[in-house]
Amino acid sequence: MRTIDWVDGAVELIDQTRLPAECVTLRLHTVDELVEAIRRLAVRGAPALGVAGALGVVLARGDLEAVARLRAARPTAVNLAWGVDRAAAYLAEGQEAVLRAALRIRDDDIAACLAMGERGADLLQGDRLRIMTVCNTGALAAVERGTALGVVQTLHERGRLAEVLALETRPLLQGARLTAWELARMGAPHRLVADSAGPYLLARGGVDAVLIGADRIAANGDTANKIGSYALALGAERAGVPFIVVAPESTIDAATPSGDHIEIEDRGAEEIVSVAGVRVAPEGTKALNPAFDVTPHDLITAIVTDTRVIHP
Amino acid sequence: MRTIDWVDGAVELIDQTRLPAECVTLRLHTVDELVEAIRRLAVRGAPALGVAGALGVVLARGDLEAVARLRAARPTAVNLAWGVDRAAAYLAEGQEAVLRAALRIRDDDIAACLAMGERGADLLQGDRLRIMTVCNTGALAAVERGTALGVVQTLHERGRLAEVLALETRPLLQGARLTAWELARMGAPHRLVADSAGPYLLARGGVDAVLIGADRIAANGDTANKIGSYALALGAERAGVPFIVVAPESTIDAATPSGDHIEIEDRGAEEIVSVAGVRVAPEGTKALNPAFDVTPHDLITAIVTDTRVIHP
Repeated sequence: MRTIDWVDGAVELIDQTRLPAECVTLRLHTVDELVEAIRRLAVRGAPALGVAGALGVVLARGDLEAVARLRAARPTAVNLAWGVDRAAAYLAEGQEAVLRAALRIRDDDIAACLAMGERGADLLQGDRLRIMTVCNTGALAAVERGTALGVVQTLHERGRLAEVLALETRPLLQGARLTAWELARMGAPHRLVADSAGPYLLARGGVDAVLIGADRIAANGDTANKIGSYALALGAERAGVPFIVVAPESTIDAATPSGDHIEIEDRGAEEIVSVAGVRVAPEGTKALNPAFDVTPHDLITAIVTDTRVIHP
Repeated sequence: MRTIDWVDGAVELIDQTRLPAECVTLRLHTVDELVEAIRRLAVRGAPALGVAGALGVVLARGDLEAVARLRAARPTAVNLAWGVDRAAAYLAEGQEAVLRAALRIRDDDIAACLAMGERGADLLQGDRLRIMTVCNTGALAAVERGTALGVVQTLHERGRLAEVLALETRPLLQGARLTAWELARMGAPHRLVADSAGPYLLARGGVDAVLIGADRIAANGDTANKIGSYALALGAERAGVPFIVVAPESTIDAATPSGDHIEIEDRGAEEIVSVAGVRVAPEGTKALNPAFDVTPHDLITAIVTDTRVIHP
């Protein structure tokens, strides 16, 4: 099963807003359909967005305005712009060359996730590992295997995984909906926890390592990732637990010197005043909804990429 | 409006599980009805539980087994047992004496919250204060005014409140449902945030003080409060923001030497795999659901009670 792919002249992707209730594949023929799918998080996760960006350039069929719209669909994720730019570099050579470039990015992602899983599993010590993670960084965030959850998958395949504590990940509950679904499919033991319980459970001593993905890594190692990552980093530091970022090299943005320069998307009040489609706050309640946070590099034990381990 | 009171021979309380959609008052005639209301959080908040415990002893009409059941209804909150014990001390003197003791506890709570509000507002510096808080510590957690939110109310009355950032407080969303409702009634500017955004928003510099309540304070100052408090304490420490606990003296449990000795209630999977009554996680997903956490005293700037300010 692939999260996103190019099939018979169109982009096919699993609509992640429908999981875990049903697994629906969307077939997209235009950039605007893809932009809408990206905005409503039908496709999400940094590596998958890189592939979506590249395949979207194929859909643009040389329309540079469409390429620009696609590139700006989600500001925090560097991989989207990266995938767009990589494929767009072949626009002058024609549609076939753009398609070849986009499929290479897809295949590279599959290989990169496998490499990250092995490198991350090699880095961790111990045979009965209890891992904490946030958001969804599994196959659904990439093409065939994930980043942080790719390491979990490799650990599980090697018989070294005791349990995953998965944060539910408000507001959109990717942990409850997607990560729990993927872990169940893997047969990996797991329990779901409220986001706010993460730091406390670290303090209580029930976790051997925190593994997270990344949406953008600045040149100095500061890492933008799903809101809640920073709180886990604080909890991990106080508890003496390794805090490890797993992300492909394409997530590292050399043009961004530090986290202070990363734009953080505010996704508006609606996701906060309602939960799973049910209104919970009183009418008229305002909200502040940063979708990501920035973890300073001094709180990060290691960054595992497809080619190396960085100690910021 | 009182959250809980004794009216014509029965306990009356606002059913907080129905807010903010509707404001329904329950009338309870037996200890078992009260225990059920406490368990399903129709009444919650440490001071309100103290008053509930005391009034519940009146309902017990001398039945010591009922008194014991009531005392154990929520293990983490010391005020419940405290209120039960205070009223039960008069059992030998008859029903009228028990009732007088319980009403004194109710009246003492009203006076204590007013005193905490003034002492807390006096302690804070600045005229345009941006306050972050978690859970509900307002009138709904007490009788007429609250603890941490009582300080907010006093600041607002004094014209010194710029904004409250209220954490939604998963799993039961007391922040979204109750605190937002109370702040709107007060006319105090406020925005709701996801729990996991709290530490990051502290790092971003948008908050002047964190104010929380307490369910139990150990002799050394370690404080058990709603899950997520510890994460805010870590965030406040790193950001250099005061982290202040507001709680009546009855919350201080001299018999508990430190946080290590505080029993933390696990409320089971159902609250986590479902959100606002909607199933979100796949069938069969397990969860870990600590309702409270413990903030070590070294992360607490001050504890404001009805009689003093403690610097742990």
